[in-house]
Amino acid sequence: MTAALEVVSLEPAPDQLRYSFGGAEPLLTVAPGTVVELTTEDCFGGAVRGVDDLPSQVCVFPYLNPVTGPIAVEGAEPGDTLAVHLVDVAPVRDWAVSTTFPHFGALTTTHQTAMLHAPLEELVWLYEVDRERGTCLFRPRRGGPEVELPLDPMHGTIGVAPGAGEVHASITPGAHGGNMDTPEVRAGTTLYFGVNVPGGQLSIGDGHCRQGEGEVCGTAVEAAMRTVVVVDLVKGGGPAWPRLETDEFLMSTGSVRPLEDAFRVSQHDLVTWAAELTGWDVLDAYQLVSQAGLAPAGNVVDTNYTMVAKLAKRYLPGAPAADGVHERLRETAAAYLGQR
Amino acid sequence: MTAALEVVSLEPAPDQLRYSFGGAEPLLTVAPGTVVELTTEDCFGGAVRGVDDLPSQVCVFPYLNPVTGPIAVEGAEPGDTLAVHLVDVAPVRDWAVSTTFPHFGALTTTHQTAMLHAPLEELVWLYEVDRERGTCLFRPRRGGPEVELPLDPMHGTIGVAPGAGEVHASITPGAHGGNMDTPEVRAGTTLYFGVNVPGGQLSIGDGHCRQGEGEVCGTAVEAAMRTVVVVDLVKGGGPAWPRLETDEFLMSTGSVRPLEDAFRVSQHDLVTWAAELTGWDVLDAYQLVSQAGLAPAGNVVDTNYTMVAKLAKRYLPGAPAADGVHERLRETAAAYLGQR
Amino acid sequence: MTAALEVVSLEPAPDQLRYSFGGAEPLLTVAPGTVVELTTEDCFGGAVRGVDDLPSQVCVFPYLNPVTGPIAVEGAEPGDTLAVHLVDVAPVRDWAVSTTFPHFGALTTTHQTAMLHAPLEELVWLYEVDRERGTCLFRPRRGGPEVELPLDPMHGTIGVAPGAGEVHASITPGAHGGNMDTPEVRAGTTLYFGVNVPGGQLSIGDGHCRQGEGEVCGTAVEAAMRTVVVVDLVKGGGPAWPRLETDEFLMSTGSVRPLEDAFRVSQHDLVTWAAELTGWDVLDAYQLVSQAGLAPAGNVVDTNYTMVAKLAKRYLPGAPAADGVHERLRETAAAYLGQR
Amino acid sequence: MTAALEVVSLEPAPDQLRYSFGGAEPLLTVAPGTVVELTTEDCFGGAVRGVDDLPSQVCVFPYLNPVTGPIAVEGAEPGDTLAVHLVDVAPVRDWAVSTTFPHFGALTTTHQTAMLHAPLEELVWLYEVDRERGTCLFRPRRGGPEVELPLDPMHGTIGVAPGAGEVHASITPGAHGGNMDTPEVRAGTTLYFGVNVPGGQLSIGDGHCRQGEGEVCGTAVEAAMRTVVVVDLVKGGGPAWPRLETDEFLMSTGSVRPLEDAFRVSQHDLVTWAAELTGWDVLDAYQLVSQAGLAPAGNVVDTNYTMVAKLAKRYLPGAPAADGVHERLRETAAAYLGQR
Repeated sequence: MTAALEVVSLEPAPDQLRYSFGGAEPLLTVAPGTVVELTTEDCFGGAVRGVDDLPSQVCVFPYLNPVTGPIAVEGAEPGDTLAVHLVDVAPVRDWAVSTTFPHFGALTTTHQTAMLHAPLEELVWLYEVDRERGTCLFRPRRGGPEVELPLDPMHGTIGVAPGAGEVHASITPGAHGGNMDTPEVRAGTTLYFGVNVPGGQLSIGDGHCRQGEGEVCGTAVEAAMRTVVVVDLVKGGGPAWPRLETDEFLMSTGSVRPLEDAFRVSQHDLVTWAAELTGWDVLDAYQLVSQAGLAPAGNVVDTNYTMVAKLAKRYLPGAPAADGVHERLRETAAAYLGQR
Repeated sequence: MTAALEVVSLEPAPDQLRYSFGGAEPLLTVAPGTVVELTTEDCFGGAVRGVDDLPSQVCVFPYLNPVTGPIAVEGAEPGDTLAVHLVDVAPVRDWAVSTTFPHFGALTTTHQTAMLHAPLEELVWLYEVDRERGTCLFRPRRGGPEVELPLDPMHGTIGVAPGAGEVHASITPGAHGGNMDTPEVRAGTTLYFGVNVPGGQLSIGDGHCRQGEGEVCGTAVEAAMRTVVVVDLVKGGGPAWPRLETDEFLMSTGSVRPLEDAFRVSQHDLVTWAAELTGWDVLDAYQLVSQAGLAPAGNVVDTNYTMVAKLAKRYLPGAPAADGVHERLRETAAAYLGQR
Repeated sequence: MTAALEVVSLEPAPDQLRYSFGGAEPLLTVAPGTVVELTTEDCFGGAVRGVDDLPSQVCVFPYLNPVTGPIAVEGAEPGDTLAVHLVDVAPVRDWAVSTTFPHFGALTTTHQTAMLHAPLEELVWLYEVDRERGTCLFRPRRGGPEVELPLDPMHGTIGVAPGAGEVHASITPGAHGGNMDTPEVRAGTTLYFGVNVPGGQLSIGDGHCRQGEGEVCGTAVEAAMRTVVVVDLVKGGGPAWPRLETDEFLMSTGSVRPLEDAFRVSQHDLVTWAAELTGWDVLDAYQLVSQAGLAPAGNVVDTNYTMVAKLAKRYLPGAPAADGVHERLRETAAAYLGQR
Repeated sequence: MTAALEVVSLEPAPDQLRYSFGGAEPLLTVAPGTVVELTTEDCFGGAVRGVDDLPSQVCVFPYLNPVTGPIAVEGAEPGDTLAVHLVDVAPVRDWAVSTTFPHFGALTTTHQTAMLHAPLEELVWLYEVDRERGTCLFRPRRGGPEVELPLDPMHGTIGVAPGAGEVHASITPGAHGGNMDTPEVRAGTTLYFGVNVPGGQLSIGDGHCRQGEGEVCGTAVEAAMRTVVVVDLVKGGGPAWPRLETDEFLMSTGSVRPLEDAFRVSQHDLVTWAAELTGWDVLDAYQLVSQAGLAPAGNVVDTNYTMVAKLAKRYLPGAPAADGVHERLRETAAAYLGQR
C-alpha cells in the first residue's frame, strides 16, 4: 500500500444534522477510496443527559435520530455499488443513555401494533462508559445488581438516498439501508449499498456502545461517536438490499414487515448471492444456506423490522464478493491505522 | 456423585414410533434423574435413502417426523418443570439426507402462505457423514464446488404432551415444545418444559447432523440418532414456554406466527425470567436484555415459527435457573460419560 | 319434496359438552339428509350471568367454548364433503353477555402478542335480548347512550374432526373449521367441510346474538342457542378449508396467522374454486375475483385468525357448487319449516 | 344554499403528473369549500391500451400510479383536518385495463414476500366500459364465460403530504392516505386527513371502474377518470389516520404491515373516535364496535396493507363527526349537481 491515503474530516454543526435519507444536498463529496473521519450525535441529539431527561419532554419530533451526511461519492451512478468500510467506531463521551419511549419497542403497544393500553412507563438509564476498560455499566433503576457489559460499538443507522425520489425519515430502515439497527455494523465490517441517485449520498448516525439483537426495548446504549470509514465505489452490481461483509462472513439484510418477510428478503438475497459467487444452481445454494446459515434479528421495533442472513465465507468456495473490495478496504484501514 | 446411575434403554420398533404429542400411553416410565439411552428415526422414517427417493413419493402423510416416546416421569404433575439434559446426540448412519418438499419451506408457496405458483422442484441431497472427522459433505445436485460442513448434531423435535387434552402433530412446535427446530438443542443443553399432564410425557425425534438458523428450505441434514438424555423433575415452576440452559446461556423460546409474535413471546419470557432470577424490576430486565440479548431464528418454516431469546448467564447475577438443576444434570452426564 | 323428513334432537347434558374437535366418540349418528334440532351452551358454559360474574373467576380453563357433538354422518369417509345447512339459529334466553377477557382480544396484549402491559380491565356487558322485536340492547358500563342492535344470530364455532389424529381445543379455528367466528355462519348458510375421519364428526357451539367482523374485543354477544341444521354428505370433493354458500354468495375461508396468510388461503381457495366451477384458467379466475370479490375479516383474536373470501354467484356462470347440495338443503329446510 | 359555488378545474398535462406525496409545489390553491373538477390518468399512465401492452414493457419505473395535484387548501395548517367530498367519479374512456404484474399481488412472490419462484405470467385484461348501462365487461383470456360487472367507480389513491419532510411514492399507503385502494373511496364519501404541512397538499389518482376488496391480483379495473370533489377545511382535529364518512357509515383506516396491524390501527381509531363522539368510555366503545362493526380489507398487495373499520352511524348516538362537515359537503355537492 504505497498510495497516499486521502483523509478528510466531517464534523457537522448541530444545524447541519439531517433527519432523513434522500432529498438533501451533500455535506461532503469525496473520491472513491477516501478515508472519512466523522462525528455523529446520539439518537436523542444529545438532549438526554440524565435519568430525568425524558425523551418525550426534551426531544422534539421529528428531530430524532440525526445523521451525519450525506457524503457524495464521485462517479457513483444508479446501479453502482457504494462500499463503506468501518475502520473505527468510538464513543465520544464517558456516558451513554437508553430509554423506554412511549409507543415504541417490541413489548409495548405502538402506533402500528395499536392497543388500548396506556404506554409503558418512560424511563431513562444512564450508562457509565469506560473506554479504557472497554465497558459500559448497567445500573438498574429500581434496585438489584449492577452489570458491567463489554463495549461493542456500532452504528444503528447507515444508508444511501432511496430511489424514486423518495425521502425516508432516518428512523426507517429499508432497501436503502437506514435504521437497520443490527449490531453487525461495527468496525471491521464493509457494507454494500445499491446506488439510487448520483453520488449515492451516504449518511451515518445512531451510534450504540452496544445493542442486543432485536433492540427489544427500542433503544440501545445510545452514544455520540467518533467514527472512521473508508468510502469506495464498485461500478455496477448494486444489490437490491444492503449487504455486509467481514473477514469471516457474508451477510444479507431485509428490512420490511412482518418479520418473516424480512427473513425471506434476507435469505432470498443470500441464496441468490451465494449461487452467483459459487456457480451453484439456486436450489443448491438454498440447500447450503439452509444448513450453514445464521439468522439473527437486527431490530424488531422500527417502522420496518430487520433480519440478517449470515454465512461463513469458508463455506462459499468461489469468487470474492464485490470484486474483493472488502480485502482492499481492509488494507486501506490497516494503512490508516498504522499511520494514525 | 456417589449415587448409582439409573440407566435405561429405549429403542422403539418402527410400529412403536409416534407422530404426535399428547394422547398416547407412555412407552417408558422412569424415575427423576434417570439416564435414557434412546434411538430416533429421521424425519422421513428412514424412507429417503438416495436422491431418487422423493419424499412426496416414498413417505405417507401423516406418517412424517416420527418421535420416540412418550417417556413418563414419575411424580410429574401439571405445573411442574420437566428437565431434560442432552448428554450425547450421535448420527447412527454414515449418510444423511435433506430435501426440498412441495409447499414447505420459507422461500416457497406453502399451504398457509398460499400462492398460485407451482411448487419448487422437489430435490434430495444425500450427505456423506464422517463421524470420525466430524463432518458431513454437501454435494450440489447441479454442479459446482462441494463443501464439507462440521457435524453439529441436534434434535429438531422435543417436547411434552400439550394441555387441554390437545393432540398436536409432531411437525408443530408450540408451548409444549415439539418441532422447534432450533440448533440450540444439542448435547450440553438442558431443556425445561412445563408439565401439562401426569408424567409430563416427553418425546424426542427429528435428529439433524446440523441445521442453519431458520431451517430455510424446510429440512435439515436429517439423520437417525443414538441419543442419551437425563430426565429430571423440578416440582412447580413449570414455564409457559420451553426454556433452555447451557453452561453459558439461558434461552427462552416462542413458537407462534407471525415471526414477530414468536420474537415477542421469547423476549417476554426471557425478560420476566431475568427479573425473577435477579430481583430486578421488569423494566430493568427489559433494558438489560435489550442491550445484552441475542435473538437467533429457530425455524421459519413449520406450522408455527420459532424464535430464541438468549442471554449470557454472566450478565445475570443472582439465583441459578430452575434451582440449579442444569449443574446437577451436568454432573450426572459427566458421571455417565465417565463410566461409559 | 315428498320424502318424509328425518328429524332428530340433540340436547346434551352439561357433562356431555365437549371442548375440542377430534378424539371423541359421536354423541349422535345420523343418515345424510337428517334434520337435527340441537341446543348449544354459550362460550362461558352459562357461568357468566351478570356484570359481576368475571369469566376469569367463574370459568375454569380449559372448560371454555363448549360444543355440541360430535355428530357422525353415516357413510362419510376421508375425502368426502360434509355439508351442513343452518335452518334456524335462535337465542334461548332473554339475555346474553359479552366481556373483555385478560390476554384476549385484538387491541390488548395476549399470550402470543406478548407485551409488558398489565391486562385491560375485565368487564362484563349484559345484553337484554328481545326475541320478538329481534333486538339486543347494548348498555354501556360507564354511562352514555344505550344502543339497540338488531339480532343476527350465528355460530362462532362449527367444524369436523381434524386429520392426522390431531385434537384441537374448540377455541382454535383451522382447516377443520372450529372457532372461525365469522358472522356469515347464520341461518340460510350451507357449510362444506372436508371429511378427515370416518363419520366426519360435526360439532357446533359458541352462539352469538350478533358479532361484528373481526370480533375485536374477543367475545361477541354470547348466547345459548336452539339451532336446527340439516346434515348431508357429498361423496368426494372435500375442500381443504371450510367453504360456505348462501343463495347469493360462495365463500372460502382461511384460518391461520398472520392475517395476510389467512387472506391468502381464503383467496387462493376462492380463485381455484371459481376456476373449477366455470372452466376459467386460474389466472382468469384470479382476475375476476380481484374485481368482484369481498374480503371481510372473520376473527382477528383467536389462536388462528380467519378471513373470508366472498363472491356473488351471479358472477360465476357455470356449474353449481358441490353438485347443487345447497339448493337441495334449502328445500329440505323449507319443508321442515313448513311443517313445524 | 344561496352562496355562489366556487368551481375550478384541474386537468394536468402529462408532464404535470406527479408520482409521490410530499415535496412538491401545489398545482392549484383553493379556498375551503371549493368544488374542483379534475382529471386523473390511470395507474399505467395510459400506456397499457391492449392485451399486448405488458406493463413491464410499456411502463417505466418509477413513473407508475400518477396523481393529480397537489391541491393546496388556503389556511390549512399542521393539526387541521382536510375534508374532501367525492361528488362524482366517472371513467373517461370506453375501456379499462387490469393486469398481473411481476412480483406484485397477494398470491405471488413479491419483493417483500420474496420466494424462489419465477413470477406468475404477466397478462393484460381489457374491459369494455359501457357508461350508459353502467357496466364493464370481463373477458377471460383463456376461454370460458364472459361476465358483465357493474361499474362502481372509485379512486385507489388519495391523500396529503406526509409529515417529517418525508416523500412517499404514490404507490404507498400510510397515515397520509395515498394508495389505500379501498372501494369505499367512491362518490358520496367524505375523507378526512390530518394536515401535516401548510396547505395540506391533496393529490388524487388511480381511478378504478371497480375493485374487489383486497385488490388480490394487485390491479383493479384501471381507468382515467373525470372526477369532481369539494375540498374543505376543519380547523384542528386532524386524525392520525385517514377517516371516511358516508351518509350511513363512519370508517377508519389503517395502512401498515402485517395485515393484523392494519386491522389494529383501523379498529383502534374507530373505537377511540366512537368514544369521543358519544361520550362512552373507551372500553364501552370497544364493546360496541366489537358487536356492530364491519372490517373489510382495502388492499393486501401494496407496500402497506389497508384495512377499513366501519360502523353504521345509527349505532352512534351523539355528536356528528368532524363538526358535521359531511352534511355540509353533501349540500354543496347537491347544489353543484343541481346546477350542472
